[in-house]
Amino acid sequence: MSRGGTLERAAVLHAPEDVRVQEVEPEPLRPGAVRIAVAATGLCGSDLHYYADGRNGPNVLRTPTVLGHESAGSITEIGDGVDPDLLGRLVAAEPARPCRRCETCASGRYNLCPAGRCFGSPPTHGTIRSSVVVDAELAHAVPQNVDPAEAALVEPLAVACWAARRAGIVSGSSVLVTGAGPIGQLAVAAARAAGAARIVLTDVDPRRLASAAGAGADEVLDTSADQLPTGFDHQLECSGAPEALAPAALVPGGVLALVGVPAGRAPSPELLAAAQRWEIDVRGCFRYGPGAFRAAVGMVRAGRVDLARMVTGRFPLEQTGLALHTALTDRDHLKIAVLSEEDA
Amino acid sequence: MSRGGTLERAAVLHAPEDVRVQEVEPEPLRPGAVRIAVAATGLCGSDLHYYADGRNGPNVLRTPTVLGHESAGSITEIGDGVDPDLLGRLVAAEPARPCRRCETCASGRYNLCPAGRCFGSPPTHGTIRSSVVVDAELAHAVPQNVDPAEAALVEPLAVACWAARRAGIVSGSSVLVTGAGPIGQLAVAAARAAGAARIVLTDVDPRRLASAAGAGADEVLDTSADQLPTGFDHQLECSGAPEALAPAALVPGGVLALVGVPAGRAPSPELLAAAQRWEIDVRGCFRYGPGAFRAAVGMVRAGRVDLARMVTGRFPLEQTGLALHTALTDRDHLKIAVLSEEDA
Amino acid sequence: MSRGGTLERAAVLHAPEDVRVQEVEPEPLRPGAVRIAVAATGLCGSDLHYYADGRNGPNVLRTPTVLGHESAGSITEIGDGVDPDLLGRLVAAEPARPCRRCETCASGRYNLCPAGRCFGSPPTHGTIRSSVVVDAELAHAVPQNVDPAEAALVEPLAVACWAARRAGIVSGSSVLVTGAGPIGQLAVAAARAAGAARIVLTDVDPRRLASAAGAGADEVLDTSADQLPTGFDHQLECSGAPEALAPAALVPGGVLALVGVPAGRAPSPELLAAAQRWEIDVRGCFRYGPGAFRAAVGMVRAGRVDLARMVTGRFPLEQTGLALHTALTDRDHLKIAVLSEEDA
Amino acid sequence: MSRGGTLERAAVLHAPEDVRVQEVEPEPLRPGAVRIAVAATGLCGSDLHYYADGRNGPNVLRTPTVLGHESAGSITEIGDGVDPDLLGRLVAAEPARPCRRCETCASGRYNLCPAGRCFGSPPTHGTIRSSVVVDAELAHAVPQNVDPAEAALVEPLAVACWAARRAGIVSGSSVLVTGAGPIGQLAVAAARAAGAARIVLTDVDPRRLASAAGAGADEVLDTSADQLPTGFDHQLECSGAPEALAPAALVPGGVLALVGVPAGRAPSPELLAAAQRWEIDVRGCFRYGPGAFRAAVGMVRAGRVDLARMVTGRFPLEQTGLALHTALTDRDHLKIAVLSEEDA
Repeated sequence: MSRGGTLERAAVLHAPEDVRVQEVEPEPLRPGAVRIAVAATGLCGSDLHYYADGRNGPNVLRTPTVLGHESAGSITEIGDGVDPDLLGRLVAAEPARPCRRCETCASGRYNLCPAGRCFGSPPTHGTIRSSVVVDAELAHAVPQNVDPAEAALVEPLAVACWAARRAGIVSGSSVLVTGAGPIGQLAVAAARAAGAARIVLTDVDPRRLASAAGAGADEVLDTSADQLPTGFDHQLECSGAPEALAPAALVPGGVLALVGVPAGRAPSPELLAAAQRWEIDVRGCFRYGPGAFRAAVGMVRAGRVDLARMVTGRFPLEQTGLALHTALTDRDHLKIAVLSEEDA
Repeated sequence: MSRGGTLERAAVLHAPEDVRVQEVEPEPLRPGAVRIAVAATGLCGSDLHYYADGRNGPNVLRTPTVLGHESAGSITEIGDGVDPDLLGRLVAAEPARPCRRCETCASGRYNLCPAGRCFGSPPTHGTIRSSVVVDAELAHAVPQNVDPAEAALVEPLAVACWAARRAGIVSGSSVLVTGAGPIGQLAVAAARAAGAARIVLTDVDPRRLASAAGAGADEVLDTSADQLPTGFDHQLECSGAPEALAPAALVPGGVLALVGVPAGRAPSPELLAAAQRWEIDVRGCFRYGPGAFRAAVGMVRAGRVDLARMVTGRFPLEQTGLALHTALTDRDHLKIAVLSEEDA
Repeated sequence: MSRGGTLERAAVLHAPEDVRVQEVEPEPLRPGAVRIAVAATGLCGSDLHYYADGRNGPNVLRTPTVLGHESAGSITEIGDGVDPDLLGRLVAAEPARPCRRCETCASGRYNLCPAGRCFGSPPTHGTIRSSVVVDAELAHAVPQNVDPAEAALVEPLAVACWAARRAGIVSGSSVLVTGAGPIGQLAVAAARAAGAARIVLTDVDPRRLASAAGAGADEVLDTSADQLPTGFDHQLECSGAPEALAPAALVPGGVLALVGVPAGRAPSPELLAAAQRWEIDVRGCFRYGPGAFRAAVGMVRAGRVDLARMVTGRFPLEQTGLALHTALTDRDHLKIAVLSEEDA
Repeated sequence: MSRGGTLERAAVLHAPEDVRVQEVEPEPLRPGAVRIAVAATGLCGSDLHYYADGRNGPNVLRTPTVLGHESAGSITEIGDGVDPDLLGRLVAAEPARPCRRCETCASGRYNLCPAGRCFGSPPTHGTIRSSVVVDAELAHAVPQNVDPAEAALVEPLAVACWAARRAGIVSGSSVLVTGAGPIGQLAVAAARAAGAARIVLTDVDPRRLASAAGAGADEVLDTSADQLPTGFDHQLECSGAPEALAPAALVPGGVLALVGVPAGRAPSPELLAAAQRWEIDVRGCFRYGPGAFRAAVGMVRAGRVDLARMVTGRFPLEQTGLALHTALTDRDHLKIAVLSEEDA
């Protein structure tokens, strides 16, 4: 079933707050790759940054770009050399194209490839469209009966799984998760799946805290009011707020994983002092490295994460602008999904 | 409440098949240690070896020795410098006395301390007695409502947790467990708690296989009849049979953990060939290192392991001989507990 | 400077002891790759196995194949996308073509890629020819003034560096190297460069032991006569003889790296028993993973290895058959180089 | 040869700039420990902080305390259970008393023991005295012919070795060392011994830079004037200046080790941003963990470090005040040693 010649629909960001659903050329299929009929794409903080400001940190929108990178759908076409059994499989897409050749890729850290591209990061087109092409190895099969909007959340769940792995969480670990947004809530599940025995989730935003109750932590704290406990082996910092860094809450030799994109404020001098004195490891976490999607899919298969509760809104592709606006303005939403399917 | 001056009851092995329940001096309490009124001790393969043969591998019974090392009970007395809040706590005892000073201990591998002693390994007395003295750090609190016979199983569960850690099991791992005895069955639970997404448990003994059904594996196989699958990231070899080593079932770079005490037969030459060609790591696992009891207790607290199903027999301390005989002759038993409590 | 249309010379193995120097088509250049005018190729044990027996372990010669994989030469042509500054550079070739896409490659273990090919392993052609094509990332620049026959030894030196890395040698380590052939002798240098404070090199062959004196070990022992010391942190087993495995010579928690291709004999049962009891890690080492060539080149640059003493014979490409015969029959040779240069 | 009853000389700090050489009781010997007749103690930045300000970071001088912790001397007396062969050995003292029992110690991180004490950190007495008592395992034998003032530098060299280990330096690594004081200069040697292929040493102080020329780096840069290169695998930050943190100079996935005690200023927001985006690990280094003294002694034995050039001043114990004043005011000195020997 070739798409050649037929245009498809896509949500293209032309400028801040100027997203247009329009006809675009489908991406060409290539050897070793598969075409996925996108069923759903979750909206992520970076999508909102591009939508609101035309930029996300140092990356700036300069040409019209299809948004989105948390997606799932069914494989409709396969490139040369790909196993035909994949046709029809529901998959979550790992939205990356590392070069696979540089020293960084060769050493198993393809998520850090300086030449790598990520879907939905301008100028690389994203997944809020009818179809997307990914390398076959990056199309991760999920059970066929999973709701595609939930399957799209395998991507942020992979972020959380990678953070748990980078942090070195093991069976019996005690874990502090700061920031109760979608990543923080998924980090609770990922930490639990990795064996965490005690998990405390914190935030300062009452709406986040309200929804956090269902995330599966042993305790949810409002750190604008509550005293932070201590004795954690690991912190998964998911808020991006330097104020949330809590080296003093960690045991000697503890690990502090930076998961949220740090807001551009200096951390307290205490961070360096504590890191040096108590050999705290501060470890950056960027997207997902080897095995992260596998871990995330494993959690979905085993029922170790409740993704349904995360999907609080659904919009058709044609209303992507409204979906973005809603996500930006209504903080009661945990995760809004844009559904491409009616286009299929 | 000092025990000074009062004799206590203990099951003392004098020679093969000659176990006598007799009066012994309680161990003296020492600074930094606690006295535990032993409630239950599980019988382990090493106990049976001493009972049947007067030896366990290279270690030989030369003087009468109290047997047992899988124990739990309540803290009844504390040494100088110990937190009084521990009094009355139900604890699982880590049955070890490492020297804590040698290079091995200092580097965090106290379980390998050449000068270390383990309870129930002659000539060091064990736990099938009224009370036992351990360093406070080695008395691991379990919830007060846990059945002591189950709490005693925290020790073999710690063996399994340590194996999972040494094997490097992470969220999403695929794990082969060979040997469906108590350790193998607990290894399934420990691997799951560490994040294993797929677990296959194998044995060749029909009785083991029957009880293995409840262990929580995704699949139980009789490798005397069934074909072994492949693609595992890790093997936890819990049978001790060199024939069970399955490097060819592992992915490139996989890890093969030796948990069961290897029977004295040479492994197939294929082991070395596969290890070299595919960079399989073969890692020995001896008892439990740092964090293993914590992981095990965490599993108990979180209900991640069903220890009740493991305890298939209970005998009073006075019938320790019968308990040992039963464990030795009736392979339908998974775990027999000797209860010291009526002595308390 | 395209080679298109011109034939080149190559040493092609047609059957055991039937090597013919003949005209072959040059390999086509491809994007991202470079053409190296091969200056020298060192002969390795695997070349000798193919020459003598038509096979090397499980890999069998079925079609005529160019031999050789330890090579160096100058870059004469570059494919699309390659930095033109590479033209004229003397490089050591990493003789591999991993798929770069599978889970094994993506996780940084490209040397274990199940789909990977290695030069000189039938049916993949090797480097005893006029030119060879490798991915630009696998052409490792060495100082221009290095003798190409020595530069060709960067490949076996990378094997040794990888072994040191896999074994976890750090500053202060105590290391046993068993087997004083070329790899064992280079392993001494690699262990030293990685910080080893004490290195003992052993063999049982008087000729190996004679040449081993210059390898840089603190002590050279004839284990057919001398008692093996103990207390090593690491063993680098480079002989392939299972009898050389010395777990009892290691400290608790020591690491035993399998570097030499294991001869098809069963190891002593003691190996498993010691590995389990003392948590010895047995780690396979296959060729070289990420960073190994970089480490080897770094040693060459810094003068940390004397490669000149290793090259004990040189033959022109036209006499490859004689070179192989000599290497096979005269064990006084450490390393024989075949020089392709007169063809350039 | 008991010291019981005889007083000894010690340099006692009573208040800032008030150091008095006076009679003190020798420390009592204890089982498992040795008495060292201190020959030399090197002055370190922390000694100068106590001398100048009566405090070092959060630790405050409240009672008169013997200063000093970088010491060497000969063993003159042994406690119960210690090998008599140690008598007369020249040793470098590891100036620590960890509890050896807590979870931190048990897991191999005794340098982070919350209950641990370090010599010369008030109120724990230091080594500028006639004799000091340390656990036998913490008395590290150096060759008998080493100058004691150089042997005393094994302690800061162990700091450097630990930093290299924590940073994960391996053969072939590229290393940036910031801060050319004694620790920075020793870090160059330690990085080299651990296999570093390229080392750049930087500072902003002309006097530091002048002496840095002899430290063994491939390049010495004045970062107040020169452009910092990039592409380093590791940074060893030895200056304590947050401005020296250079995450942008590291490769993706690089490691930034905090060795110098961080001055109490906030780092640039760039640190967190880069750490997160490029998965830079920021790892604190505190004193020395398992194996660090062994690595340092190995370097001394193998002649891999020139300690003689570091010792730029020597004062007798009776002139400790002058020694401290000189170290504080004359930045041309790299390391001043206080010699206790005439007292022995």
